[in-house]
Amino acid sequence: MGKVYAGVDLGGTTAKLGLFKEDASLIRKWEIPTRKEDGGKHVTPDIADSIKKHMEEAGIAMEDLAGAGIGVPGPIRPDGYVEVIVNIGMRDWNPVKELSELLGGIPVKGGNDANVAALGEMWQGGGKGYRDVVAVTLGTGVGGGVILDGRIVAGSKGMGGEIGHMVMDWNWPEPEACNCGNYGCLEQIASATGIARIARRFMKESDKPSVLREKENVTAKDVFDAAKAGDELAEEVADYCMLYLARALAYISQVIDPEIFVIGGGVSKAGQYLLDLIRKHYDPLIVLTKEKAKLALATLGNDAGIYGAAKMVMDSLE
Amino acid sequence: MGKVYAGVDLGGTTAKLGLFKEDASLIRKWEIPTRKEDGGKHVTPDIADSIKKHMEEAGIAMEDLAGAGIGVPGPIRPDGYVEVIVNIGMRDWNPVKELSELLGGIPVKGGNDANVAALGEMWQGGGKGYRDVVAVTLGTGVGGGVILDGRIVAGSKGMGGEIGHMVMDWNWPEPEACNCGNYGCLEQIASATGIARIARRFMKESDKPSVLREKENVTAKDVFDAAKAGDELAEEVADYCMLYLARALAYISQVIDPEIFVIGGGVSKAGQYLLDLIRKHYDPLIVLTKEKAKLALATLGNDAGIYGAAKMVMDSLE
Repeated sequence: MGKVYAGVDLGGTTAKLGLFKEDASLIRKWEIPTRKEDGGKHVTPDIADSIKKHMEEAGIAMEDLAGAGIGVPGPIRPDGYVEVIVNIGMRDWNPVKELSELLGGIPVKGGNDANVAALGEMWQGGGKGYRDVVAVTLGTGVGGGVILDGRIVAGSKGMGGEIGHMVMDWNWPEPEACNCGNYGCLEQIASATGIARIARRFMKESDKPSVLREKENVTAKDVFDAAKAGDELAEEVADYCMLYLARALAYISQVIDPEIFVIGGGVSKAGQYLLDLIRKHYDPLIVLTKEKAKLALATLGNDAGIYGAAKMVMDSLE
Repeated sequence: MGKVYAGVDLGGTTAKLGLFKEDASLIRKWEIPTRKEDGGKHVTPDIADSIKKHMEEAGIAMEDLAGAGIGVPGPIRPDGYVEVIVNIGMRDWNPVKELSELLGGIPVKGGNDANVAALGEMWQGGGKGYRDVVAVTLGTGVGGGVILDGRIVAGSKGMGGEIGHMVMDWNWPEPEACNCGNYGCLEQIASATGIARIARRFMKESDKPSVLREKENVTAKDVFDAAKAGDELAEEVADYCMLYLARALAYISQVIDPEIFVIGGGVSKAGQYLLDLIRKHYDPLIVLTKEKAKLALATLGNDAGIYGAAKMVMDSLE
């Protein structure tokens, strides 16, 4: 069998787990519930027990497990210490140290889930073959992960890749603040909920007919479906939202100049249409180089985290 | 004597050179003219000859020269290849390879001058003691250099740290474009020339009395001097320009979250007053962490480049 690596993507509801060979092939993947009771004290033992059980089922000896990586939904320090994970209710915890002890002292590495997923997309997903990758997740919120020279840029205070909270509209016309407390964040414009919000605003501000007006609760998917079908108002909404995203990507390029942006999350199901819109607005902003950053869709979906977690520990053992 | 390292900061008019010991102490520094004739073909031989001459004068044997670094005023590839350096008129040139050959095959490393200066400030300047540093130069233009984990982030197309061309005012009200061709770049607002431009705009748009109106050609220094003395219009100009700079720094933090911003260039002579203005506008934008990035003034001035160049080659030999 050779060496085996475990990748764990800890979420508020479930933890996703995977066992990988060194050549990146996935041996098996599964999920377990995240038990939040008792301040989350069962979480790490549950993960360790589950890894042991699946190793046994797969007929792999424990001594072949060379390391484990874990992505957690919050900031984590380089030594693995977590001050607080809000949506699990965990405080003052070191999952890296604990998981290592529970797995017989093997090397364990921890990272923020968005960053770890970005590493997964670089390794085996939309960013495969590149070393300088920025992953952008357009889901309920807007998340990001920065990979430079193949390594996660976590940032000095764990804020690396927090691109959803770049204020992109300094004259935000709505009373509602972003979850972070600021107004006009990228997340309020280019997330799935943001796109739906902009659609509602555009519908209110114009009399233009649109199929979107027939929806009770318009979604980002409705917007892109209608835009692709030629609905003018929907086209305007999609164009507007991707203009702001493209501006944020241009800023990122002017700071770290990645090779490729990998776009994931629910909104990315709009596919090439989405990439084309981003491209249209991004390229004119990059005037200092003829060659522009590549744009690609994420390909690993919900598995990006387990891939990245396994890769993270592999890299640490090189 | 121990090992000695040469640092070269190549500019369009002069090349600055320095010899350093491993402990960062500067043995000597000097300048030579940059001979642009014949497509710049004398530049590298002049540098090599000058290094040899000064080594001899300082009584250092050539075999003690362990490496040389060179910062060039333009994009340079990781292998040292330079497509074009506009302000020297050089094309299709590899200063790294050439300098190495001329110095008897010692290791030579090349980098973009702004990035190399940033490394210098991290090593022995305003960013000393930190590993994740963004240097911002507010001079005729706005330059930047990104250092993560002690290493220069040059970017996949050499555009890393090109923060002067982040478009910060999307509704730029003036007809004049930035040198880059876009409108509303940070450079048009927060450089020395940008601050003077904003001062002219503010004077035209209001009737407020100001000592700035007595100046024939108002400068950024005039603006900060008057602002410090309590001139209301000058205060408004300084505040406005630093608001836009702070927004750009917030974007940078949301991408890579550096420990410290080191502010240099002529405008930085405004000192603590400048840092306080930036701080005032920066902190409210960073809501995800209680701890905010540090702000400091650059301390090496025109020597940052030679320090950074020497450090660059030292690091490559570790």
